Amino acid sequence: MDLESVKRLLQKEGGAYETTVDSLPQRFFEPFVCHGLKVDLIEKGRIICSFTVPPRLLNTATSLHGGATATLVDLIGSAVIYTMGSPMTGVSVEINVSYLDGAYVGDEIEVEGKALRVGKAIAVVSVDLKNKKTGKIIAQGRHTKYLALSSKL
Amino acid sequence: MDLESVKRLLQKEGGAYETTVDSLPQRFFEPFVCHGLKVDLIEKGRIICSFTVPPRLLNTATSLHGGATATLVDLIGSAVIYTMGSPMTGVSVEINVSYLDGAYVGDEIEVEGKALRVGKAIAVVSVDLKNKKTGKIIAQGRHTKYLALSSKL
Amino acid sequence: MDLESVKRLLQKEGGAYETTVDSLPQRFFEPFVCHGLKVDLIEKGRIICSFTVPPRLLNTATSLHGGATATLVDLIGSAVIYTMGSPMTGVSVEINVSYLDGAYVGDEIEVEGKALRVGKAIAVVSVDLKNKKTGKIIAQGRHTKYLALSSKL
Amino acid sequence: MDLESVKRLLQKEGGAYETTVDSLPQRFFEPFVCHGLKVDLIEKGRIICSFTVPPRLLNTATSLHGGATATLVDLIGSAVIYTMGSPMTGVSVEINVSYLDGAYVGDEIEVEGKALRVGKAIAVVSVDLKNKKTGKIIAQGRHTKYLALSSKL
Repeated sequence: MDLESVKRLLQKEGGAYETTVDSLPQRFFEPFVCHGLKVDLIEKGRIICSFTVPPRLLNTATSLHGGATATLVDLIGSAVIYTMGSPMTGVSVEINVSYLDGAYVGDEIEVEGKALRVGKAIAVVSVDLKNKKTGKIIAQGRHTKYLALSSKL
Repeated sequence: MDLESVKRLLQKEGGAYETTVDSLPQRFFEPFVCHGLKVDLIEKGRIICSFTVPPRLLNTATSLHGGATATLVDLIGSAVIYTMGSPMTGVSVEINVSYLDGAYVGDEIEVEGKALRVGKAIAVVSVDLKNKKTGKIIAQGRHTKYLALSSKL
Repeated sequence: MDLESVKRLLQKEGGAYETTVDSLPQRFFEPFVCHGLKVDLIEKGRIICSFTVPPRLLNTATSLHGGATATLVDLIGSAVIYTMGSPMTGVSVEINVSYLDGAYVGDEIEVEGKALRVGKAIAVVSVDLKNKKTGKIIAQGRHTKYLALSSKL
Repeated sequence: MDLESVKRLLQKEGGAYETTVDSLPQRFFEPFVCHGLKVDLIEKGRIICSFTVPPRLLNTATSLHGGATATLVDLIGSAVIYTMGSPMTGVSVEINVSYLDGAYVGDEIEVEGKALRVGKAIAVVSVDLKNKKTGKIIAQGRHTKYLALSSKL
């Protein structure tokens, strides 16, 4: 791919969507990604959700965008920490995701978050995305947060 | 936080934004995140972009959403691989991000992607986000892709 | 800590162990770490081992060295891939480890490796270290390998 | 590979090295790995070392063992944090390593650690391993530590 094409790919100038993007409200990113998510089980240290891959979250290769998957790891990871009684004020320290299989429009996926450790200062949650029909793991990630309020990161 | 509140937080039911989300086009995720990105430098194995943190990408704590940062690592990482002449058809193997400092609305950030290795099959790119004014690193991530076309992941 | 002390810490010059290190055989690293490891269960895609934390693998804070934990993730991760019939010739692409709790001399730990995906080219294994007595997770890691022989990394 | 062979590979029973391993002193892991490391530059937030790949740290494929590389990321990462005046008492939260190229016996490598952030509670250091002769990057990793003394992880 020549450099000009790569540049255009990133800048996406002049697309019809520009007006749309500009009119979107504050903090729209989170509802934009997780709209449609259903919580099937929630208990201390564990959450299981259902999510049907929507057209809006596809990448150019027509599977669930890697950034959307990482965002689900972020969101569900944080939510699992809240179930342990932690305040909503932690900050992310690290997120990692291994991409294992593609997920396509209409695929029903199960997202399961499990607390690995929720201490006073550091919390780590693992998040698995699985295709409900095939049982195959689509992605596995971990979200590490720093929880302490008073002292700074 | 009680479990019902965590559940509501994830499901975000009944918000005014629901109609908006449903009306958004296919593959809207990528332009939604990177709208406004400007490519300042592009050469073989290296890209530097400017990006002003927009209100739409904030998290509830009013800083750039961790999932949006991960998406920039994904996108810029891929773009750097394309500058090496690789086809656009690779798949993500792993993305990781360390979050080092907050980025707030209106902050101008520099996103720099550098190829660490682009081989026949495996490519790894590091991506740094830096606050242009303070020079502080906001995040550092790596994006690993598998490039081969013919054989399956 | 002043810079000279940090330097000495890294260079560890003049210790009594120097003669010992120099006399150790080729490829001694792997037996040095995993000596004492017992395989309790081995099946396609899954291995469970027992390991008692030995004095030789402690860090200066008297718990299991983070580098030793990472090495166990490397070794058990590779072994799980071999159980799927893969050749021993893959190369590591990525290893990550979250450290969740300390493990001390004499602690019996269970190391469990599970294949997340073993494809033609890319294999990913998750590895958990758990304290057998308390049930607490000590560490969780993932090992990603590239398996293909003929083409280069 | 059949399951019995994988088991033998992990358990390495009956090797001549067994007596040797048993006679090694407490905390031998760290000197065992980093013996021979020379510090070329040390300043606040940055360390550059030289290291010649020794036979003892090879894997079965005769290149520098991935666990040894991870251990160098651990050690140099910690040392960089100490140069910032932090106490030696932090605990590892996360280590990750991307393996980019092989390093072979006698190869002279440069290991460079750079502080990305050293705050009151969280420190993150990036560590690059580079072949001195070819300039190629062998590995890039990050080491995240939690520094606070009084409160528990």
